[in-house]
Amino acid sequence: MSNRVQEILSWYESDNAGTKTNIARLLNHGKLAGTGKLVILPVDQGFEHGPARSFAPNAGGYNPHYHFQLGLDAGCNAYAAPLGFIEAGASHFAGQIPLILKLNSHDTLHDEKDPMPSVTGSVRDALRLGCSAVGFTIYPGSSHCNAMYEQLRAIAEEAKSCGLAVVVWSYPRGSGLSKEGETALDVVAYAAQIAAQLGAHIIKVKLPTAHLEQAAAKKVYEAEKIPAATLAERVKHIVQSSFDGRRIIIFSGGAKSDEKTVFDEVRAIRDGGGFGSIIGRNSFQRPKAEAVKFLNSIMALYAGEKP
Amino acid sequence: MSNRVQEILSWYESDNAGTKTNIARLLNHGKLAGTGKLVILPVDQGFEHGPARSFAPNAGGYNPHYHFQLGLDAGCNAYAAPLGFIEAGASHFAGQIPLILKLNSHDTLHDEKDPMPSVTGSVRDALRLGCSAVGFTIYPGSSHCNAMYEQLRAIAEEAKSCGLAVVVWSYPRGSGLSKEGETALDVVAYAAQIAAQLGAHIIKVKLPTAHLEQAAAKKVYEAEKIPAATLAERVKHIVQSSFDGRRIIIFSGGAKSDEKTVFDEVRAIRDGGGFGSIIGRNSFQRPKAEAVKFLNSIMALYAGEKP
Amino acid sequence: MSNRVQEILSWYESDNAGTKTNIARLLNHGKLAGTGKLVILPVDQGFEHGPARSFAPNAGGYNPHYHFQLGLDAGCNAYAAPLGFIEAGASHFAGQIPLILKLNSHDTLHDEKDPMPSVTGSVRDALRLGCSAVGFTIYPGSSHCNAMYEQLRAIAEEAKSCGLAVVVWSYPRGSGLSKEGETALDVVAYAAQIAAQLGAHIIKVKLPTAHLEQAAAKKVYEAEKIPAATLAERVKHIVQSSFDGRRIIIFSGGAKSDEKTVFDEVRAIRDGGGFGSIIGRNSFQRPKAEAVKFLNSIMALYAGEKP
Amino acid sequence: MSNRVQEILSWYESDNAGTKTNIARLLNHGKLAGTGKLVILPVDQGFEHGPARSFAPNAGGYNPHYHFQLGLDAGCNAYAAPLGFIEAGASHFAGQIPLILKLNSHDTLHDEKDPMPSVTGSVRDALRLGCSAVGFTIYPGSSHCNAMYEQLRAIAEEAKSCGLAVVVWSYPRGSGLSKEGETALDVVAYAAQIAAQLGAHIIKVKLPTAHLEQAAAKKVYEAEKIPAATLAERVKHIVQSSFDGRRIIIFSGGAKSDEKTVFDEVRAIRDGGGFGSIIGRNSFQRPKAEAVKFLNSIMALYAGEKP
Amino acid sequence: MSNRVQEILSWYESDNAGTKTNIARLLNHGKLAGTGKLVILPVDQGFEHGPARSFAPNAGGYNPHYHFQLGLDAGCNAYAAPLGFIEAGASHFAGQIPLILKLNSHDTLHDEKDPMPSVTGSVRDALRLGCSAVGFTIYPGSSHCNAMYEQLRAIAEEAKSCGLAVVVWSYPRGSGLSKEGETALDVVAYAAQIAAQLGAHIIKVKLPTAHLEQAAAKKVYEAEKIPAATLAERVKHIVQSSFDGRRIIIFSGGAKSDEKTVFDEVRAIRDGGGFGSIIGRNSFQRPKAEAVKFLNSIMALYAGEKP
Repeated sequence: MSNRVQEILSWYESDNAGTKTNIARLLNHGKLAGTGKLVILPVDQGFEHGPARSFAPNAGGYNPHYHFQLGLDAGCNAYAAPLGFIEAGASHFAGQIPLILKLNSHDTLHDEKDPMPSVTGSVRDALRLGCSAVGFTIYPGSSHCNAMYEQLRAIAEEAKSCGLAVVVWSYPRGSGLSKEGETALDVVAYAAQIAAQLGAHIIKVKLPTAHLEQAAAKKVYEAEKIPAATLAERVKHIVQSSFDGRRIIIFSGGAKSDEKTVFDEVRAIRDGGGFGSIIGRNSFQRPKAEAVKFLNSIMALYAGEKP
Repeated sequence: MSNRVQEILSWYESDNAGTKTNIARLLNHGKLAGTGKLVILPVDQGFEHGPARSFAPNAGGYNPHYHFQLGLDAGCNAYAAPLGFIEAGASHFAGQIPLILKLNSHDTLHDEKDPMPSVTGSVRDALRLGCSAVGFTIYPGSSHCNAMYEQLRAIAEEAKSCGLAVVVWSYPRGSGLSKEGETALDVVAYAAQIAAQLGAHIIKVKLPTAHLEQAAAKKVYEAEKIPAATLAERVKHIVQSSFDGRRIIIFSGGAKSDEKTVFDEVRAIRDGGGFGSIIGRNSFQRPKAEAVKFLNSIMALYAGEKP
Repeated sequence: MSNRVQEILSWYESDNAGTKTNIARLLNHGKLAGTGKLVILPVDQGFEHGPARSFAPNAGGYNPHYHFQLGLDAGCNAYAAPLGFIEAGASHFAGQIPLILKLNSHDTLHDEKDPMPSVTGSVRDALRLGCSAVGFTIYPGSSHCNAMYEQLRAIAEEAKSCGLAVVVWSYPRGSGLSKEGETALDVVAYAAQIAAQLGAHIIKVKLPTAHLEQAAAKKVYEAEKIPAATLAERVKHIVQSSFDGRRIIIFSGGAKSDEKTVFDEVRAIRDGGGFGSIIGRNSFQRPKAEAVKFLNSIMALYAGEKP
Repeated sequence: MSNRVQEILSWYESDNAGTKTNIARLLNHGKLAGTGKLVILPVDQGFEHGPARSFAPNAGGYNPHYHFQLGLDAGCNAYAAPLGFIEAGASHFAGQIPLILKLNSHDTLHDEKDPMPSVTGSVRDALRLGCSAVGFTIYPGSSHCNAMYEQLRAIAEEAKSCGLAVVVWSYPRGSGLSKEGETALDVVAYAAQIAAQLGAHIIKVKLPTAHLEQAAAKKVYEAEKIPAATLAERVKHIVQSSFDGRRIIIFSGGAKSDEKTVFDEVRAIRDGGGFGSIIGRNSFQRPKAEAVKFLNSIMALYAGEKP
Repeated sequence: MSNRVQEILSWYESDNAGTKTNIARLLNHGKLAGTGKLVILPVDQGFEHGPARSFAPNAGGYNPHYHFQLGLDAGCNAYAAPLGFIEAGASHFAGQIPLILKLNSHDTLHDEKDPMPSVTGSVRDALRLGCSAVGFTIYPGSSHCNAMYEQLRAIAEEAKSCGLAVVVWSYPRGSGLSKEGETALDVVAYAAQIAAQLGAHIIKVKLPTAHLEQAAAKKVYEAEKIPAATLAERVKHIVQSSFDGRRIIIFSGGAKSDEKTVFDEVRAIRDGGGFGSIIGRNSFQRPKAEAVKFLNSIMALYAGEKP
């Protein structure tokens, strides 16, 4: 096992050998195995946004096997999805790619200012399906944040006792925040910190803008002159806010965009000390061959094979 | 064991030997060991206020190991933090400093008049992490106080049955109170009493002002001429309100301020019969050497080595 | 994943994806990864025979880390041991080699005609230690066989529900059998069948002699002219008796012997369609470099790289 | 549904609809569907007698899929086997033939006067494997009968609460009986009664001889002149002893014998009012085509298509 | 914390922070704090041998407080006793000395060849009484060894999940062994190994003689020329047999004897790399002042302050 992976594992000092084993599995699979970097394929958009919005641009994605195969072909570190998608392929692809079972999900058939996902899977589901980790979304800033944090607390305690890893999607959202505030630097840093304090092993946040949302925070950012002009600087701040880089923090790719934008973001994540990307729509909404090439380019950037 | 510590333990007469052992551990560690006084290092601000507001002034504090080491270097009686921070260092520092696992936490990404923290840890977490106590915040005055009191009741019952100590942060707040009322003498005294009646072993409140919030209380304070002119007199009243001094009551340091202010507050706590301080931002937001010196000065005041 | 591994997984059709994943992990690790063959390192002799008999010939083996490292260096598919040995290295070697936690053990400080091991670990231990499988020994022919079978039944049910694989050591022994009968062809075939019917995923038996123990069986072996002259023919019969080769069946190496003997046995296992070897004393009782070379020679035989 | 099947179901009046549904599945599958007669294929001999004694005469039977296919091809009502054999085919053949999971098994590597099988499967196994019924063997006459009856009681209670049917193999054996007594008319009748009283839905016994084992019983059989000269008369007595025919009672085929003997036995069962046969070695030890023809002849006898 | 203690803690790599904390408490208390050596005071003889045999020689010992005070005055690392003795002093002495609650006990009012202690306390008792560890006795060589091992397995799993340490008294005894064999070198080494494999953190055995009990072992000891002439050499072998010294192994003092004998034994333990002594009768059967002096001399030997 590479020194870097061993160093990362050492940060999870209170976790049992089972959880360390599963974190190692995520870090040691695919093209980035051993580098300490991760590119994860998440496909929860069918539940979150609806099937046509998610899969019509590349209709292969309606089929659950498609995404397992895409993750494999591209050499991703892991594939993350809700219960249905995982159940629909876990047996066929058993042992081929580490799986992350998303344990809560949220649909958009009814709109609300303060979102609250449903718990849609269990730790025992993750065990029977051979997953290495459970995934859970929290919306800091939602008036329902307590309910989510407490669900996560119970799930994380059970998952850790069973030797699974815990991946937290921490997405600020809700009546406490402006739209711009959802990706504000101070807010994303705060969201990463909350996930880490809740005991997450791996944290997923959105890339932050230079906007500062909270007055009390803004005062500090300005007084302390926290560098925030470039995306790499902002990533560095988020990494620091995740226990000084002692928790794996990765960044979401967001809506589909052109290659150059994504590659530049990846460079910023890499240069800022981020641990990788979780790229859904930007991968499965492209034709498969193109998606594999695209993901491999991203991996090459993380591996330092490309500038 | 010092007579003073034995006297203090004698007040907890209905607690089992395990809980007494853990209270003794808190009282017998660090520079103030055996004096019956405590200086505790709490670092829950990352969750409560966000990472930059908490750690940017002294960036070492982003790293969870920093605070364990600070507590050790300064000779604090204990270190208190939420799950993530404790998990990130409990194994490395096992047996080096008593730990208090904060079992609820509250963030400020969502503003509300009546705050309600989330339960973010469990008594079993405290046991597996080797903690001596669990910590829990209540907000008397919040419309959600019942929910908090009842969560505390259940947690305290479980913690006591496992031989752990229970530390309660009792912070009046919510729609029932004016801003000034949160630190009013009658209200802080009331908050201390509520925590004591809920079964807390150690109570943490803010230093009270001379303001009196509640009309019915004001009448009595004036009729009985309860001395409240000096901070030491007010501390004395809070101590009296905590079962006539038969429960350990400590005072929070609040936001970072200059040394003289803090030292004067500590003198008042000492002279009023308080049991000590819980000092977060005033310690970890200073450079480490300075913080150690600062904390040691406070301990010297409590130990009576300085006037 | 290789076609052969996929074919093997297809036989475990009633198992959940978790169990299939863990069987795949065993088949896809080490030098024989993907071949469908296994060489497993088992070190339960410290408990079974005592420390000096096990480790004095090569004193490095007293140290629990030695065996993890030997399994890694030699490229074994997995390492199997009781609780103490696994606990003593599972964190340090997390994610580096698949682990099998032996859940029962038997010492020889107390002699008995009908042996009965103690249950010395649990399925939850296996999960917290990051194991891929649990191991369990049964002694068909012992008057205590019912107790063992029923312990195995309960453990296997729990293990399978958690996505673990079940490895059964099936060693005929006890008052129902002569000493020679313990390795008789009919008896070993019967022991393999029993383990398979009890739901084992992987079965470990000793290499059978041409002796036939049971009168009723002998009649059939002679009537049906079951070929049993060569070791390869006998292995073939054992494989057939393990659900016609649809269960992974491997053979134990037994006491330390010279290389040629072991290699010839391995050739017979290979030529008879066996799935591999589980080699303890013959590996860890040799100096490490020699053991690695020895195990690699065995792997080369299984891989078909040597005749 | 045929009137006859409805009539049979009406006897199980205290069972829930789930159990009735599963009894109906057994009665409504295969060539005898709807007739109220059953021919069941049981393959537990691998465990009971060993693999070679069971499968060497027709080596296809080593393969677990073979028996599912044989049951299907012959149009049997159900296939009964222990855990390992059912697990090895239940997914592939899901929905194709009703399954009976044998929940206890006994091997013959250890001889004893008073046999006691091991519990080798659970009701939850039966549910997850899609079985219609659980099977359980009792040995009335064994000194361990209490243990078996009590295991059966608990299993039957659980199975019925889950809507499964309970099939009891009731085989008199043990130190309480002479060898001849195991198939004595009074003893077999008694064994059927015990199974019925223990709550069996379907009872399997051996064909009785005219021998009378127990002195007290013999007196009555002679006084009451219970007809017992022909096999059909004796079958009739067994049926009567099974709640006057209000429980399904079927007869085992025993060791492989010539066709005429078996057909004559079937005629006797039919003419005596028995519900059918459970035929293992006489089917799977013949070449498959022959076995199908043989079983179909038996079914034709039961269906009344042949005299 | 001393480097030596940190090194020792590192061996318990699969244990949670709570268990590491409690092991550290044992290693960091008393005169030997920080040296990695332990002298533990055990007083279970009242239950094991009766009160007069235990306490009449020094009548102070009838009083449970006496032993807490003796352990304190002498600076022992810990005090170990059964439920009654611990309950009778745990509150009075809370926090003054680490406690080990013996969870099983055996009296000698009825003699048996194969001893089997009773479980007389629980993990929850240990928590409520503020103990750092639970103690458990096994008798390898007893025909009841399975029952003891399985009780220990369950207790150890629960204790570890609650952050307690597990101390195992491993005393070969029973019909499998000659009287001389109980302290034979091979047997004591085997007993240490068994305790370690069962997951003990601290193992207590008797000092071994040069006798070799088991024929199969004897052959190896002679072939490998395992040095056994001196007590120090034999201790070294026992330490090696305890996971190559990666488990804390201490030695019991046995019946009261003269000072020189005990001191020579302690020198041998020290020179052989043992971790210390557990000394009951040799301490509490002397007058207190003498006992303290005696224990302090032993500690001075371990600390290297005396040759």
